[in-house]
Amino acid sequence: MGTESSSSIWPNEGMVQGVASKSTLGCLSRMLTESIHTDVTINTTDGVLKAHKSVLAACSPVFESMFIHDLKEKESSTIDIGDMCVESCSALLGFVYGTIRQEQFWKHRLALLAAANKYGLGEVKACCEESLLEDISSGNVLERLHVAWLYQLERLKKGCLAYLFVFGKIYDVRDEISGFFHHADRELTLEMFQEVLSVWKPI
Amino acid sequence: MGTESSSSIWPNEGMVQGVASKSTLGCLSRMLTESIHTDVTINTTDGVLKAHKSVLAACSPVFESMFIHDLKEKESSTIDIGDMCVESCSALLGFVYGTIRQEQFWKHRLALLAAANKYGLGEVKACCEESLLEDISSGNVLERLHVAWLYQLERLKKGCLAYLFVFGKIYDVRDEISGFFHHADRELTLEMFQEVLSVWKPI
Repeated sequence: MGTESSSSIWPNEGMVQGVASKSTLGCLSRMLTESIHTDVTINTTDGVLKAHKSVLAACSPVFESMFIHDLKEKESSTIDIGDMCVESCSALLGFVYGTIRQEQFWKHRLALLAAANKYGLGEVKACCEESLLEDISSGNVLERLHVAWLYQLERLKKGCLAYLFVFGKIYDVRDEISGFFHHADRELTLEMFQEVLSVWKPI
Repeated sequence: MGTESSSSIWPNEGMVQGVASKSTLGCLSRMLTESIHTDVTINTTDGVLKAHKSVLAACSPVFESMFIHDLKEKESSTIDIGDMCVESCSALLGFVYGTIRQEQFWKHRLALLAAANKYGLGEVKACCEESLLEDISSGNVLERLHVAWLYQLERLKKGCLAYLFVFGKIYDVRDEISGFFHHADRELTLEMFQEVLSVWKPI
């Protein structure tokens, strides 16, 4: 309790923002989980979800334009997401509405990455890249490299190349490398070759 | 970058929630400031504001019921807030949408408190009480006591009574106390008297 004049400097700078933010996030979470005044239906491959045009439009330029222009999405208030299952799409909404749980994110991060790329969700994309960088292993490095290439994730690509050639794990995936070279983009295989040339020297 | 198996324990526990929350708050802030798909108009005493039914309904049971029951607010998608100016009401929306600035809160906290009480915004109310407790002074203690009484703010009331009688500041407001006793609620004056009896002793 202050005991001096009312002109005293504000003692809890930032306190209000903190309380307001927390309360706002709780509010938004209820909007999603209790379907409060939802005005858009999302059709996934195996189920339907309800959401808010305002939230989707504010987070994604792609959703935004769907509702602005006279596309069928605007008229029907329905979005077809034909390449996501309801569980992955719930995770996507969870990210957007701030309710996502860590294990849910972890489980669906590849699907989230694809959706983030498609709908222009920069923060989701960055978060997925960061996460995929964390647990590169011999079992997934070639798949990750492909993903990095597909979605233009420079840091992830560099991470995979370093894993293979700087840390020398290329020997762990020797059996798979031939199949990979047969199917991977030529530009990517060229880049891998250049990486070898730049970090390896003849004995 | 992980160099071992993909079964490693998640290294950045909570990272995703943090990123998602921040991104969600930015999203919600844009919804308000850029009036993205607003669907409700708020009439204040001196201006009009735009907001979202879903957000208002999620934060306040009073707003929620306005849009559920067949009240005029539902039909017209308009809320009349005839006891708030546009600036105070902006601060209220700012709290709800998580965009409020500290000085804005500080300036409008009495109006916010009245609105929080009216619309059942528990967190706004608690935040206002906390703030009003911070800078009790001789110049405002009687007004604060009245406010505490009006909105059933027990902590603020106790703070004011302690300021007056425990810290002995009652002498600073001697000139005003007579006017206060003429207009204040009888229950409140009784409580003040009991406070004196409980903390003061005859010399």
